[in-house]
Amino acid sequence: MEGASSEWQKALSALRRKIDDIDQQVVDLLSKRQKQVEHVVNLKKTHNVQVYHPAREEDLISARRQQAAEAGLSPDYIEEIYRIIMRRSRVEQTDQMAAKAVNPGATVLIVGGTGEMGRYFADWFAGAGYAVRVMGSRDWDNAAALCADIDLCMISVTIDRTSEIIANIAPYLPPDCVLTDVTSIKQAPLDAMLAAHSGPVIGLHPLFGPTTSTLDKQIVVATPGRDDAACQWVVDQFSLWGSVIVTSDAAEHDKIMEFVQSLRHFATFTFGQFLAAKNVPLARTLEFSSPIYRLELGMVGRLFAQDAGLYAEIIFATPQRRALLKEYIESVSRNLEMLENGDKDEFEHQFAKIAQWFGPFGEQAMRESSFLIDKLIERF
Amino acid sequence: MEGASSEWQKALSALRRKIDDIDQQVVDLLSKRQKQVEHVVNLKKTHNVQVYHPAREEDLISARRQQAAEAGLSPDYIEEIYRIIMRRSRVEQTDQMAAKAVNPGATVLIVGGTGEMGRYFADWFAGAGYAVRVMGSRDWDNAAALCADIDLCMISVTIDRTSEIIANIAPYLPPDCVLTDVTSIKQAPLDAMLAAHSGPVIGLHPLFGPTTSTLDKQIVVATPGRDDAACQWVVDQFSLWGSVIVTSDAAEHDKIMEFVQSLRHFATFTFGQFLAAKNVPLARTLEFSSPIYRLELGMVGRLFAQDAGLYAEIIFATPQRRALLKEYIESVSRNLEMLENGDKDEFEHQFAKIAQWFGPFGEQAMRESSFLIDKLIERF
Repeated sequence: MEGASSEWQKALSALRRKIDDIDQQVVDLLSKRQKQVEHVVNLKKTHNVQVYHPAREEDLISARRQQAAEAGLSPDYIEEIYRIIMRRSRVEQTDQMAAKAVNPGATVLIVGGTGEMGRYFADWFAGAGYAVRVMGSRDWDNAAALCADIDLCMISVTIDRTSEIIANIAPYLPPDCVLTDVTSIKQAPLDAMLAAHSGPVIGLHPLFGPTTSTLDKQIVVATPGRDDAACQWVVDQFSLWGSVIVTSDAAEHDKIMEFVQSLRHFATFTFGQFLAAKNVPLARTLEFSSPIYRLELGMVGRLFAQDAGLYAEIIFATPQRRALLKEYIESVSRNLEMLENGDKDEFEHQFAKIAQWFGPFGEQAMRESSFLIDKLIERF
Repeated sequence: MEGASSEWQKALSALRRKIDDIDQQVVDLLSKRQKQVEHVVNLKKTHNVQVYHPAREEDLISARRQQAAEAGLSPDYIEEIYRIIMRRSRVEQTDQMAAKAVNPGATVLIVGGTGEMGRYFADWFAGAGYAVRVMGSRDWDNAAALCADIDLCMISVTIDRTSEIIANIAPYLPPDCVLTDVTSIKQAPLDAMLAAHSGPVIGLHPLFGPTTSTLDKQIVVATPGRDDAACQWVVDQFSLWGSVIVTSDAAEHDKIMEFVQSLRHFATFTFGQFLAAKNVPLARTLEFSSPIYRLELGMVGRLFAQDAGLYAEIIFATPQRRALLKEYIESVSRNLEMLENGDKDEFEHQFAKIAQWFGPFGEQAMRESSFLIDKLIERF
């Protein structure tokens, strides 16, 4: 038995060495691939061609899927690997393109540039070769010098101070300077900018935080104010960095954000609040958890790892938001009777109505979240 | 200019051909790799060795990371690709091992085997070579014949009928037959099984649904009842299929599931309910959405793409569950005053307390969900 056992273990070791060999060749090839991608980037940069080329990506994926099928591999498996390879290549290319300025020689002032988000944008603009000035709350004595000859003034302060800061800085701005803000509500800041500044105005809401390492496919909502043509270079700069620009009017933006931000974060807050109040054994529940629960609990935990002040601002930003949240509480409370009566029929009736309202989104959500669950299992 | 342009476009095409060439070689290598993995599986199968070998996987990842660093590639990038490759290899191996029975020659009866979950387990047991019998609600006249000489009786019916079905089937069971159920509550079915059957008893709660294509790393909670040794082969079979077994007593399981299932689904239900009541423009909000919102809304949409009856059962299963949900509604309602007063300080105070309660889980959740957000961006 001993001899037989070591025999097959030798065979296993030999097979593993072969696999290691293959793996080394794969990594070598990926390294060669990256060098070719760098050549492509240099060409594109010289000739000012955009990085993201969806048709080329899809052709490449199709070709690899077909090759996989012919080689007896699962096409989905190969597509999955190639999505990663292509994202890498895109990020690589975008990073290099980020160093390019749409409006070379322009000067950018970030008001609130000492805060996290302000520093973040200061880095991006500086990386693209712009002259960047930063203004903090102690720099008001120096405002005139900081604003002299600037081409863009970006307001990056907390929501509750945005309108006031706009009013205070505007008198110092050159008349043709683009004025923008990056707060998560848009109507009030836009009104303030239009009232205080006679030049080009655009409101921006970047839907990401300062921990985002790449702007690739990140969304920026743009709410036009005045003189779109003069503002265009700012929008184009975000596009060059890889962002997707969604244009909206300020009122629509704010209405949608009541749900996307305020309601959602408040609902998550109340859930975490209850878990804490009941002192749920978090670690043990994770041992019992399907990947989807882990994901959902992660969404709750994630909120509380962030800044309380930021979320207080988002939730309490406007009276409309607070009114909506009160409506939400009332809506939740209306389920009390159904629970007290153990009324399953009523639950199923309501469930069906809501499912109908969600329509095809439900099926789509199943597919997307199933994909993510697979990712989660893969990693943990 | 024309000449120069076609010059560089030729250069671009040449570079793309080189990249395509490299990609073909990568897929070829992955196909060769898969063939070696098949040899490994055959060896392991012959010698009854388990598939999942975490240490080997981590060694392999470390070696590839190091090679990546030496080749000027990001180690994280290569790790990401290799996690997919190894998962594929594991699934491949597990699928083949699934065809193996821990208790060869045993006969399995699935009561409720005409339902979705029942059919699912019937397929797994049949795939592993067991003799599988299926009993539906119209087969009671035939109960004695169906139960003759069986080694495992698995109850897979809805929660509200589980205890009754257990009482009805038990008289037909051979005394040494293992009796188990797969419902999502455990105390009542376990009590019913222990009372009705004098042989081996174990409660199981598989934390996945019948659409799960692989049991790889899927969790099964096991609540021991009687004669663990005699039940072990059933547990081992799930392990062989790739599941992770978590052992718990029934009371602990039920308590935790009040939160993990009932509360969570109810909270999601109330959120979807409010979105529907307010008729939120779903498609437009998605255009405005950061990946994390897409993910969270997906979790809500996902619920409503599933079976209303299943969720009604989960939520209304026990009086304890309904009492907990009432407490939840009360807890949510207690925020009304804070909202009415616009009391940001109170919000931040509570937020900080909850954040402290979440402890290091918050940071961990940030990392995990950031990873998933990247995946989501990659794909859409």
